[in-house]
Parts: sequence; structure tokens; C-alpha cells
Amino acid sequence: MTVLDNVPSRRRLSSLRRAFHRYPEPGWREFYTTVRIVDELESIGVDEIAVGPAALDTAKRLGVPDTEELDEWFQEAKDRYDGQSDVFDAIEGGHTGAVAVLDRGDGPTVGLRVDIDALPVTESEDPAHVPAAEGFRSENEGYMHACGHDAHITFGLGTIETLQRSDFEGTLKVFFQPAEELLGGGKAMANGPHIEDVDYMIGTHVGLGQPTGGVVAGARGALALNRMQFEFSGTQAHAGLAPNQGDNALQAFLTAAENLYGIPRHREGVTRVNVGQVRSENGTNVIADRVQAQVEVRGETTELMGYMRDSVERILESAAEMHECSVEYTTIGESIRHDSDPELVELVTGVADDVDGVSEVVPWMEMGSSEDVTYLLKAVSDTGGYSTLIGIGTSHPGDYHTPTFDVIEDSLPIGVGILSTVARRLFEDPLSVD
Amino acid sequence: MTVLDNVPSRRRLSSLRRAFHRYPEPGWREFYTTVRIVDELESIGVDEIAVGPAALDTAKRLGVPDTEELDEWFQEAKDRYDGQSDVFDAIEGGHTGAVAVLDRGDGPTVGLRVDIDALPVTESEDPAHVPAAEGFRSENEGYMHACGHDAHITFGLGTIETLQRSDFEGTLKVFFQPAEELLGGGKAMANGPHIEDVDYMIGTHVGLGQPTGGVVAGARGALALNRMQFEFSGTQAHAGLAPNQGDNALQAFLTAAENLYGIPRHREGVTRVNVGQVRSENGTNVIADRVQAQVEVRGETTELMGYMRDSVERILESAAEMHECSVEYTTIGESIRHDSDPELVELVTGVADDVDGVSEVVPWMEMGSSEDVTYLLKAVSDTGGYSTLIGIGTSHPGDYHTPTFDVIEDSLPIGVGILSTVARRLFEDPLSVD
Amino acid sequence: MTVLDNVPSRRRLSSLRRAFHRYPEPGWREFYTTVRIVDELESIGVDEIAVGPAALDTAKRLGVPDTEELDEWFQEAKDRYDGQSDVFDAIEGGHTGAVAVLDRGDGPTVGLRVDIDALPVTESEDPAHVPAAEGFRSENEGYMHACGHDAHITFGLGTIETLQRSDFEGTLKVFFQPAEELLGGGKAMANGPHIEDVDYMIGTHVGLGQPTGGVVAGARGALALNRMQFEFSGTQAHAGLAPNQGDNALQAFLTAAENLYGIPRHREGVTRVNVGQVRSENGTNVIADRVQAQVEVRGETTELMGYMRDSVERILESAAEMHECSVEYTTIGESIRHDSDPELVELVTGVADDVDGVSEVVPWMEMGSSEDVTYLLKAVSDTGGYSTLIGIGTSHPGDYHTPTFDVIEDSLPIGVGILSTVARRLFEDPLSVD
Amino acid sequence: MTVLDNVPSRRRLSSLRRAFHRYPEPGWREFYTTVRIVDELESIGVDEIAVGPAALDTAKRLGVPDTEELDEWFQEAKDRYDGQSDVFDAIEGGHTGAVAVLDRGDGPTVGLRVDIDALPVTESEDPAHVPAAEGFRSENEGYMHACGHDAHITFGLGTIETLQRSDFEGTLKVFFQPAEELLGGGKAMANGPHIEDVDYMIGTHVGLGQPTGGVVAGARGALALNRMQFEFSGTQAHAGLAPNQGDNALQAFLTAAENLYGIPRHREGVTRVNVGQVRSENGTNVIADRVQAQVEVRGETTELMGYMRDSVERILESAAEMHECSVEYTTIGESIRHDSDPELVELVTGVADDVDGVSEVVPWMEMGSSEDVTYLLKAVSDTGGYSTLIGIGTSHPGDYHTPTFDVIEDSLPIGVGILSTVARRLFEDPLSVD
Repeated sequence: MTVLDNVPSRRRLSSLRRAFHRYPEPGWREFYTTVRIVDELESIGVDEIAVGPAALDTAKRLGVPDTEELDEWFQEAKDRYDGQSDVFDAIEGGHTGAVAVLDRGDGPTVGLRVDIDALPVTESEDPAHVPAAEGFRSENEGYMHACGHDAHITFGLGTIETLQRSDFEGTLKVFFQPAEELLGGGKAMANGPHIEDVDYMIGTHVGLGQPTGGVVAGARGALALNRMQFEFSGTQAHAGLAPNQGDNALQAFLTAAENLYGIPRHREGVTRVNVGQVRSENGTNVIADRVQAQVEVRGETTELMGYMRDSVERILESAAEMHECSVEYTTIGESIRHDSDPELVELVTGVADDVDGVSEVVPWMEMGSSEDVTYLLKAVSDTGGYSTLIGIGTSHPGDYHTPTFDVIEDSLPIGVGILSTVARRLFEDPLSVD
Repeated sequence: MTVLDNVPSRRRLSSLRRAFHRYPEPGWREFYTTVRIVDELESIGVDEIAVGPAALDTAKRLGVPDTEELDEWFQEAKDRYDGQSDVFDAIEGGHTGAVAVLDRGDGPTVGLRVDIDALPVTESEDPAHVPAAEGFRSENEGYMHACGHDAHITFGLGTIETLQRSDFEGTLKVFFQPAEELLGGGKAMANGPHIEDVDYMIGTHVGLGQPTGGVVAGARGALALNRMQFEFSGTQAHAGLAPNQGDNALQAFLTAAENLYGIPRHREGVTRVNVGQVRSENGTNVIADRVQAQVEVRGETTELMGYMRDSVERILESAAEMHECSVEYTTIGESIRHDSDPELVELVTGVADDVDGVSEVVPWMEMGSSEDVTYLLKAVSDTGGYSTLIGIGTSHPGDYHTPTFDVIEDSLPIGVGILSTVARRLFEDPLSVD
Repeated sequence: MTVLDNVPSRRRLSSLRRAFHRYPEPGWREFYTTVRIVDELESIGVDEIAVGPAALDTAKRLGVPDTEELDEWFQEAKDRYDGQSDVFDAIEGGHTGAVAVLDRGDGPTVGLRVDIDALPVTESEDPAHVPAAEGFRSENEGYMHACGHDAHITFGLGTIETLQRSDFEGTLKVFFQPAEELLGGGKAMANGPHIEDVDYMIGTHVGLGQPTGGVVAGARGALALNRMQFEFSGTQAHAGLAPNQGDNALQAFLTAAENLYGIPRHREGVTRVNVGQVRSENGTNVIADRVQAQVEVRGETTELMGYMRDSVERILESAAEMHECSVEYTTIGESIRHDSDPELVELVTGVADDVDGVSEVVPWMEMGSSEDVTYLLKAVSDTGGYSTLIGIGTSHPGDYHTPTFDVIEDSLPIGVGILSTVARRLFEDPLSVD
Repeated sequence: MTVLDNVPSRRRLSSLRRAFHRYPEPGWREFYTTVRIVDELESIGVDEIAVGPAALDTAKRLGVPDTEELDEWFQEAKDRYDGQSDVFDAIEGGHTGAVAVLDRGDGPTVGLRVDIDALPVTESEDPAHVPAAEGFRSENEGYMHACGHDAHITFGLGTIETLQRSDFEGTLKVFFQPAEELLGGGKAMANGPHIEDVDYMIGTHVGLGQPTGGVVAGARGALALNRMQFEFSGTQAHAGLAPNQGDNALQAFLTAAENLYGIPRHREGVTRVNVGQVRSENGTNVIADRVQAQVEVRGETTELMGYMRDSVERILESAAEMHECSVEYTTIGESIRHDSDPELVELVTGVADDVDGVSEVVPWMEMGSSEDVTYLLKAVSDTGGYSTLIGIGTSHPGDYHTPTFDVIEDSLPIGVGILSTVARRLFEDPLSVD
């Protein structure tokens, strides 16, 4: 008997996924999502469920919205879903996410990280879009699971359920991570109380360039990223009567932004910079006293990202000084560089082939975008363990982050099968861990 | 008997002003205001009331909001006020404003221009603020008569009422001009059908630096202004994976804006430039495909404003080209330079002294800001007539365009007295007109 | 007998002017010029001749060239002209200029300021150019008296000679000021030891818009000016291999210069800014470690110039900081705003008419450019005296600062006549001085 | 007997090298150098010597100085060196460089490319600097063989001499290429009449990171480069009186340069951009009508360089348009990407070991800088041949392009030995060529 016999049915997994798909919540606002996950875990039966500060280092959260915004989503979730009020209490104020533990005694600890947040995308109403046609389109208008995190949650729950029904020796921990789209939750979870004893960390993502049936055993080349929110504050003045009496926050911004795009390329590798979300509401008859914007920088390595971020800070500060303004900035998202460990990639490549529905295993995927799963992967690799990011192929019709993105649900049991098999293999025949 | 005996009571004028103060409407959305003005005019009794295209050249309107915005205000006005539906019909779609005519046969034609629109300012609820204390605070939350146009309407209605009760030979025309705050209505009204036969044009504004009892007989030095809305459109791309595939509308904007602030100063006199209302909503992970902003330029003369505006257009177009973007821009507000005619300023200075409540007459005020009354004044001066802008002092507690601005109502009968007396004097003893 | 009988002949004045025209020397390098002036003064006979630190506050000199440059001109002057070696010694190292005193006992002190330096312009060899045709074209190739300072020196010497032959009670002081074209000498001379007791200060310039025979009695509206030399220093790096290892002085310069052109216009009046003399010699394969340039700012008042200069300093410093460079800057030229005193302008207007050859007297000229005579004029006006700048019309064929500029020599006796007459009038019938 | 017995003595090679070191000449001005090379070739005895248009496609030369500059160097060379006047005639006007042919009948054609130009670096006079101590320091003050091209010439002559004394079947062609430092000669020589029949092309450079005795068998990763000279032309105006009347070439430059540094990074790989050699001579009191500068862009591939160059052109043109200026630009240097062919690298690695004095062979060097030898290498590889760039290690004391750079002369016979051996090996046992 292999674990595969214990994989929940496609129908069960599809039902779970649709429950989450219907109520997408963006980063740090996954209140319904978290409580629902807890309920499902209890119904499956696990040894421990950690939420709130027990799941992650809340001081390391990035990009947490303001209280008003959090409260609005919290109330909506409570109104919608009749979940356990003590869990709601524990996660109020943006302490979303959970860690589930299945403890079967001596043996290695295998971690699985799945992300749970959604995106500010308005879901398609086109009848060709399955969620619209089959009645589980987003009910949070303007938000959508447009990156497959509904499937990721399902992978997490499905893998627990599979292993819960199986025999193994060791511990399985599933990290339901919030705020991946903000690159805001990875660091907090990697610094939480449940990481230290993990020997193998497996991240997962649908697609990664593979159609349904394809598998990617490892990933490398994700760019490290830092995203800042910044605001220049100056002094208003009448633009016609006394332009000299203003301290022009817009000129400070212009100077900063031009120079951000001019940060020198680096000998060591790829860097990126981009500015977005610019807003200055002063009318033209007033010298602007307030400009808000965001900037993100990336690097082929964490160090290169650091080089860029240091430049950003210097540019923001001297641009403010130049125009007698002040500037405040804060990191609202961050990811680091970490590549999968080749030993584990090899192992995954070897076992994935045997899983039902798998037609092709690709050892490596070259990224180029950014993911904060790297924090969790690196935390484990750095302490002598092994980590990888596994791609579960799915022939998604629309592009990522667009209104018609969808997950082919045949991928759900395949994904659970792969992840369970890999975990099982690690419990049975571990790689040597320092 | 002088006209002064016929000036409506302070109580009557205060009541009128408060009716308008309670329902402030911004430019081209003065639906309630216009219909109410028409009703008051009918109750006073005039010879002609023109609204819609009969009042102004609607093709020359600037800064007209989009249809959705107009409709929303229109419905609100209709719901609130049970006015004549044919008047409502005539002004639907942003054709606000009115011209009232009192025709007493042969004699000169005297024009009086009053503006009627309000500002996007949230009115103070402080009990020290009279409208709050006495119950006529704005009921259009977020909008306010914060520049005294409610008093201006009252001056217009009061002057008509005064002269309606008086003997004179000639014609009085009162121009109730919309959208002054947008610098959007002056050009349209100056090109309307009622300007051509006006011999004297009098604009009026409360305050102008004088306390209650003070009068300013003329004004000069208003800066000509042009305000444009512009939008750069480029091509999105993933900022991490393929920044080169974007056409960065934000970089186009940055280049344009830096260069707008660098337009050379001009030998002939004062120029101004300022950028505001900047918005780019693309996230930092996307090369921006859309930036909207506004720019205004001013000049000591209309020609200097033209020099600046030409520079703006060239800069916007070449910045777009530099970044392979496109740009669209449109003038949303404009005013020209025109100074009061000294002969008329002298006349006003002479007669204002005799009006009850007037304590001081200042011949000239130096402006520095911009006003689109200049279109109406210049239209009359250019065809051999005379024009001036008269300031009616008022000890306003808060500053212009702020939540605590207020008009001291003692100024209302004084203002009507001055304007009526000046008109009467012009009917009786005209300046020689070419 | 009036002073006019004592004015030297046109032939004598022409001969003097040509002697100076032939050997033009730029600011702080007027070695031949100064020694020659001293020789002429001795031959005329005066009571005191001050040179070097006795003539001006050498610590306040601006724009003094480096030692090597000074030495080269000094040697050339010594080689060319067999003048008094003690005078040469006194002015070595850029201490050029002189003050001549004619002391006739009790009575007012009248100052006359004439500037003595030349320009880096190559004089025309066109036979239509009188100096070329008549053999007194510049012998310092590349330099030229292209602004008439040769005539100014002649006015100074001619006026002394005229008054030396005349009876008067009081003191005449003539200030032969160096480095006007650099705006480098005025401040030093205004702070020198000979200013304090001056009751009337008269500056003079040929032309000022008037043809030969015209006179301008006073001037106003000269812009105050500050000119800085600045240099950004960074760190070189290979532009291909390691651009990030440089600290790009050119990017610092670009940021600074863009922002210099964007310094806000000022409510109080005219301001100007311009950058020039830019040089960065690093090849493109090296991140630039050095950029030198100059910037000048002007203001309608000295305060407005100060506003601009403060902005320049802030911009330079923060641009350097932004790019991890250093910046050094130093003022190399400066002038202030000072208008002629109306009382003295009236006096000049009254007496100039009587001078032989004068066909028209214009009371006021509006400037718009900058002159450092303002330091001397203001020093006297501020301590209760009177000052003015007198224009001596001349129908110059070429434009100022161009290779064909020339002074019509008929203007020379007219100019000496006017200046002598004004001085004589002040000795005889002074304005009341505080 | 191997070729190695025929390698000229260290003394002979040193003497040749010093003769060239003493008279360094920059690109397209190698008049002495070329004539001297021809003389040496004649003394060695070869079958053909091509110079001028017979050696390269003169229409494809890049960065040729103006006629005046060329003439000056040409006269100096003729005055210094009593060489053949018909050779001087052939190369006048910047047609420097030569190709030497040793034709020994049927067999493959092996090309060797050596570059011959020097740099604008002032050579050290430090006694620790061997050329200074031993009396062969540069006699062209301000210029220096600071990149070892004197050794390269010696490699070329020495290899011919070696093979001239040896038996082989085939043809040896040595390309003495001018103007490598300008990236100006490679394209012209690769398009010349002697390339077509070459089967193997070998470039060579001293050092490449190896000490004396080291060898690099192949190189890859040189960045493609394009360097442009550009000039903005505008209209002067007085910066104080009438700044608006100018068309500011400096503002056009600032806008262009800021945007050049902001050209987006490219998904396909490394790009670079840098601006240098900036000069604007207008004084600050004049709106600048002329700014000259250079810009270089690089790319990891020739296509990436093309992407950058296209962006440069667009930016220059739209910046000119923005400020109503004109702009002219022209490519003055260019190189492409080409990596050594692995088959040939393997062959070199194999045979180099046997050469006297060789202590280590490194198969590959990663470049990162740019070299126009790539044109010649690619020309041969593209037509079915093989090419590589061989590094001849030398423990140079000072860094490349600095005043104390020197070549350890022990490297001279080693280099000739390697190059001769590789050629011999190719004559005897060719790689299969398409």
C-alpha cells in the first residue's frame, strides 16, 4: 500500500478548492480563509493547529494594511462565516495564517508550505470561465484567486488528509502562509516557532510553465525583491501667488524617481527597479505637499537586492533634502534568493514519475519573478536541511493574475499525490541531514 | 429718491444667500442653483431669462465632467428641489448658468457678472462657524460655498430687485456664470449671445483684501492661466521578468514633469508652472501603462501664458515619443489677462463713497491669482466699452477655500447698494462709449 | 570759466584710449593697464595714487585666476612695458586696479568709478573695423576691449586732468576698478579704504542704448547676480565591467542641473538661473569621477538673488549626496541690486544738457543685465550719500562683447565734459548729504 | 625540429618591442608604426604586404579623427622616421594598418590578428618603471603603449619570422589592425580583402589575468559595444535679459542623459550605458547653444547592444525636439559579441602545454569588457572556420591603461612560441573546416 491509495477523491478536493475560491481575501485579510482552514483541519484530525502569533512572528509581517481596512474585512468574514469565535479572536488585526502538525513520533520532520491569499483582480463573468459557469465565481467583488492559491490550500489540506490516513514515522507540518502576493508573509512565517525542527521544506505552486500532468521538481533564479512604500511631505503654497513659499513634494518625487531608474547596473548580475502606485492629490493651483508612491527593486541575489535597496534609501533621502521636504519609507514586501537543493530535486524527480496522472517531470525551472517561499526554504537549507519548490502542472486557460485564470481540477489529486509521495519517501528513506 | 431706498432688506438678502449656501454645487453641476435662480428671477419679475445654450456658447465650455458625474448631480438636484422641469430639461448635461435681462428702453446696457459654483471643500461643523451654528451648513457633504459665490448670486438677484423697483432708462443684464472655480465658464459666457450689446461690464467679488465696509473699485494683474489634463499611455510588462518589453508611461511622465518645471523664465514678465493631481495605479511589479496628471501655466499677460502652454504641449509630446508612449491632453480651464478700465475705476471710486455702510474705497487691487471674469470684461472693453471688477469688502473669518470661510452678511446690502448705485450712475450719466 | 575749457583735446583722449585698447587684459590680470594708468596719473599730477591692498580689500576679490595664469600675464606685461617696477611689485599676484585722489581741501568728496578689464574675444581684422584699419587692434590675441573699458579708463584720466587744471574745493577720487566683466572687483573696491568719505559716487558706461551725443542720467533694474564654479568628485570604475563600483559624478551633475533649472519662480519678482562651462573629460568607458561647471543666478533684488543662491547650494549638496560624490563650490562673481538716486539723476539731467556735443538727455535707463558698480554705488548711498550710473552715448558699430565692437571717439571729450561738469556742479552746489 | 627552434631570441623580440614602445600612436594615427612594421616585414622577407585600402575597407573605419589632427601626426611621423615614402603616401589620411602574407602553397590559411595603436596616457617617469629606467619611455608625450599593443606587434612580427624560417604548407596572414582602443578598426579589417580565405583566425592579447607563463586558450563573454559622439545645437540668448529667446542645448543634453541612464534593463541579459566626454563652453550668462558628449552602450549579445543603441537614438532625437534644438550623432566605435570556438580552444589547450616557458594553460577566460577583434573572429567562424582569442600571460606591474603598465619581456618569446606552434599545428593537422 502506498500513500496514493489514501489521496482524497477529485470530487472532495474540488469541493474544498471551490469553497476557498468563492471567498478570496487579500494578504493579512484572510480571515474567512484561515478559520475555514482550521475547521477543515479539525474535521480531518491533526495533532496541533497553531494560529496567530503561535504560527508566525507577527513583528516580521510586511505590508499589513491599516486597522480600518483590516476591521472591514474581519467584520465581513465574521458576518459571512459562522466559524469558531476563538479562532477569529486569535487572528483579528491581521494575524492570519496557520500551521498544522501531524506528529507520528520519531523520524524526520517534513514541512509543506502553501500560500493562501488572493489578488485585487475582478473575476471574469464570461460563461467560458469555469468558476462563472459553475457558480463558484468570487463573491468578494474586485478580488479573485487569480494565482491558484485556492488550489495550494487544497494541496495542503489534501496532503494532511492523505498522510493522516497513512502510516509513517516522523512529523508533517503544513504552513498555510498568508500574504504571499504582498511578499509580506514569508519572512514572518520563516521566523515563526515551527520552522526550527523542519528537516525538509517543500514549497509548491500550480503551473510553473507545465500543463496538467507535468511536474517541476525544483526552481532556481527567483529574484530577491524589496518593495517600499514612500511618501514625500512638503509645504503647500499658492502656485500662482507664491510658488517659492512651497516645498514641492512633487519635485522631490520627480528627482527621486528619475534617479531610481538610473541606479547603475551591477557587475554581479541582474537587477531591476520600478516605481508604481503614484498619487498626488493636490490641485495644480497648489504646490504639492504630499506624494505617495511605491518602488520595488530586485536582484539576482539577496545581496544585489540589498545594493539596490540601499541606493533607493539614499536617493529618497537626498531628494527630500534637495526640496526641503521630508520623506518616510517602509518596506512593505520582501523576498530573498534561494534555489532548490539539487539532492532534493533529484529525489523528487525520481519519485514523481510514479504518481498517477504524471506525464512528465522537469527537473528545474528558471524563475525570474519573485516569491517569498524562499524565506522558508532557505531557513531549512541553512540549518542543514533540504528544500525545494515543486511545480504542479496545470493547463490554466487565462494568464496568471488575470480575470480568466483558472486551475484545471484534474491537477488537484495529482498535486496531492506528488506531495504526499515525496513526503512519504522522505519519512521512509531520508537524505542525510547535517 | 436714489436706488438705495429700493435695496432689499438685509434679512431678505441673507435668506437668499443661505438658500444657496445650503446646496453648493461645483462647476457645470449647478443644477439646483440655476433652477432656483430662475425661480427667484421670476418671482422678482424680469423681462427675459436665458438658460442653456441661450445663455452661453456651450461649445466653449472647459472642464465639463463626464456624463456619469453630471447625471448623478442632476438627479440629486431634481430629487431635492421641486423646480420647473422645463428649466431642468434645458440645463441637463452641464448647461448650467443663466442670464437675466431688465429692459427699460433706450439707454446704455450695463452688465453684471456673478459666479455661482462651489468648491470641493468639506464645511466646518465648528459651532463658531455661523452656517453650522445657524443651520445652513452645506448639505452636499464634501462641497461648500467656500469662496462666497453664494453672496455673489445674492448680489446679482439683489441688484436686479433693486433696479426693478427703480426708474432708469437702459438695460440691465445679470450674467450668472457657472464653473468659475474651474476657469471653465468665463470663455463660454463671453462668447454667448448676450455680450455683444453690453456697454459696461461689472464683475464683483467679496473680500479682495477689504473688511466689511471697504470697497475695491478696480483690479489689475490677474495672471492668465491655462490648465491641462493629460494622460500618458504606454505598454505594461512584468517589471521583474521583462522590463524592456514595457513602454513606461511613468518615465514619460517623469521626463515631462521635470522639464515642465524647467521651462525658461520669460523676459517679458511673470510666468508660472505647476503640476498636480498625479495618479498612476499600476503596481510596482508592472511597467506602468497609464499616468494621469494636470498641469497649469500662468503668465502676466495672455501672450506669456501662451508661451508657456506651447512649451507644455511640446514637452508632453516629445516625452511621450522618447518613451514610445502616446499622450493625450486637453485644456480644462483657462483665463486671460485683463485689467479694469481706469475711467470706470474712477467713476466707481467716486460714487461708492456715498453708499450706506461704505467706510473706505480703495481704487485698485493688485491680483496675482487668476479669474475667468476677464473674458467678459475684455469682451466689453475690446468693443469700446468699459469694464471693472469691484470688490465688496467682507471680514471673512476663515481663509478662502477653507472649511471656515464665511461671508459677513452685513456686506450683502452694502454690495447690492454699491452695484445698484454704479449701474444707476451709468444709466444716468454714461461714460462716452465708442 | 567752466571746467569745459579744461577738457583735454579729442586727440589727446583718443591717444590715451588707443594705448589701452592695444593691450587688453582680462580681470585681475590688468598689470600693464594698471602700471600705465599710474604713469599717466603721475604725468597729470595728483595728490595720491593707491594701488594693491591700498586700493581695494583684496580678500574680497572674486574669480581670481590661479597663480600660474596670473604669472604668465604678469611676465608678459613686464616684458612689454617698461613701467615702474615698484608698482609692478605692488600689484603682482592679481592685485590690480588703482585709486587716484585730487585733494583741494574742504568740500565734498566726489567719486568716479571706471572699470579697466577686457574680454576673451578675438578682435576683428576687418578693415571696416577702425582699430584694425588704424593700427591699434589688440596685440593680446584672443582678448579685446569689447565693452569699452578702454574708453572708461580714458574718462577717468580725462576727468582728473580736467579738474586738475580747474579750481574747486573738495576732493575728487577716481576708482580704476579691475575685473568688472567677472563681477569680481566691485565688492573688493567697495570694501577698500577709499570709499568711506565719498559723498557722491558716479559710475559710467559708454552706450547704454544711446548714440553719440546722448546721455543717460541714471539707471535702475540691474539684476543682482551670483556666479559659482562647482565641481563634483566621485569614483571611477569601468563602465562595462563594474558600473556599480563607481560614484558617478556625471549623474550627480545631471540631477543638480535639472533641479537648478527647476528652482521655483518667486512671488517677489524676477529670478534667473543658467548653467554653463560644463566639462567632464572621462571617456565613456569610465564612470565619471569629475565634472566641472558653473551656474549663475540672478534676482530683481539682492534678496531674490540670495534666495536663488541658497537653493543652488542645497541642490548641489544633495545631488552629491544622492550619488555618493562630494561637491565643492565657490562664488566667482557677484553683483547686487542698486538703483540710482533720483535726486542725483535729476541733477545730472539738469547739467548734462549744457555740455558741448550733448544732443539728448534720457533720465533713466532700465537695465536687466548685471554690473558690479552697484557695490560702490550702494556703499555711498547707504551712508547718506548719492550715487548714479551715467551712460555716455556712443554709436558703437558692433554689438557689445563681439569682435567688431568699437567706441566712436567723439564720445570721449563729451564723456569727460559731462563727468567733469557733474563733479564741478557737486563741488559748487552739493545736494544735502546726511 | 619544431617551429620552436626558429623563434627569434628574447633580445631580438625585446628590441622590436621597444622600438614600437618608444613611439606610441593612437588610433588611425599609427603612421610611424605602420611604416616601421612594413620595413621590418621586408627585412624578414614575406610574400605580400598590403597597406591602406588594400588592407582594410576604409569606408568602414570608425572614429577617424579630423584632417587637421591626422596631418599633424602624419608630419610628425615623417619628420621622425626616414621610412619608405610610398608607404607613407599610401597610409596618409588615416589609412593605417597592414596585412602581411607568407604563402607556402596548398594548405589551410591561418590568420593572426594583432592590434597596433596606443592610448592617451602619460607614461610614468618613475625609475621603477622599466621603460623609464632603460631609456625607451614614450617620446610622444601624453601617449603610451599602456595596453601592450607594442608586444602584440612583436608577436605578429615574431610569428612571421619564426614561420618564415620553418617548413609548412599553407598560408599565414598577419593582420596588423589599427584603432582597437577606439573600437574603430576591427570592422574595417573584417570587411577588408584578406579575410575571405582565412580558415582559422587567432586573436591575441597579453595578460588576460594570467602571469608570465600562463596561457588562456579562449575567451567568451566580451560585451558588444556601440559608442556615439553626439552634439546638441540650439540658440544662444542672454541668460539674464531674455532666457526665453534661447533654445537651450544644455537642457536638451540633461534630459537626454538622465533618460539614457534610465533605459530599461533587458530580460535577455546584461546591458550597460554610460555618458562621457561632456563639453559645453558657453558661459553662464548665455543660454548654451552647443553641447558635445559621447555615450556608449553595451550588451551581452550584439542584439542587446542594438536594443540599447536604438533607445539612445530615440532619446537623443526626442530630447532635441523637446528643447527645439537639433542633434547630430555618429557611431565612433563598435564591437560585437563573439565567443571563441570550443574546438579551437581545445586544440590550443592541447598544444600550448608543450611550449617552452608555459607553466599553465587556462581553457577559458570570461571577459566583460569589449574588443573589436570579435569582428575578425566572427567573420571566420561564420563562414565555416574556427577562431579564438589567445591570452599570453604577463606579470604586468601596473594596471592596464595606467602610466606604469608594462609587459614582462620574458613573455615575448613565449607568446611567439605559442602562436607559432598553434599555427604549425593547424597547418599540419587541420580541424575539419566546412
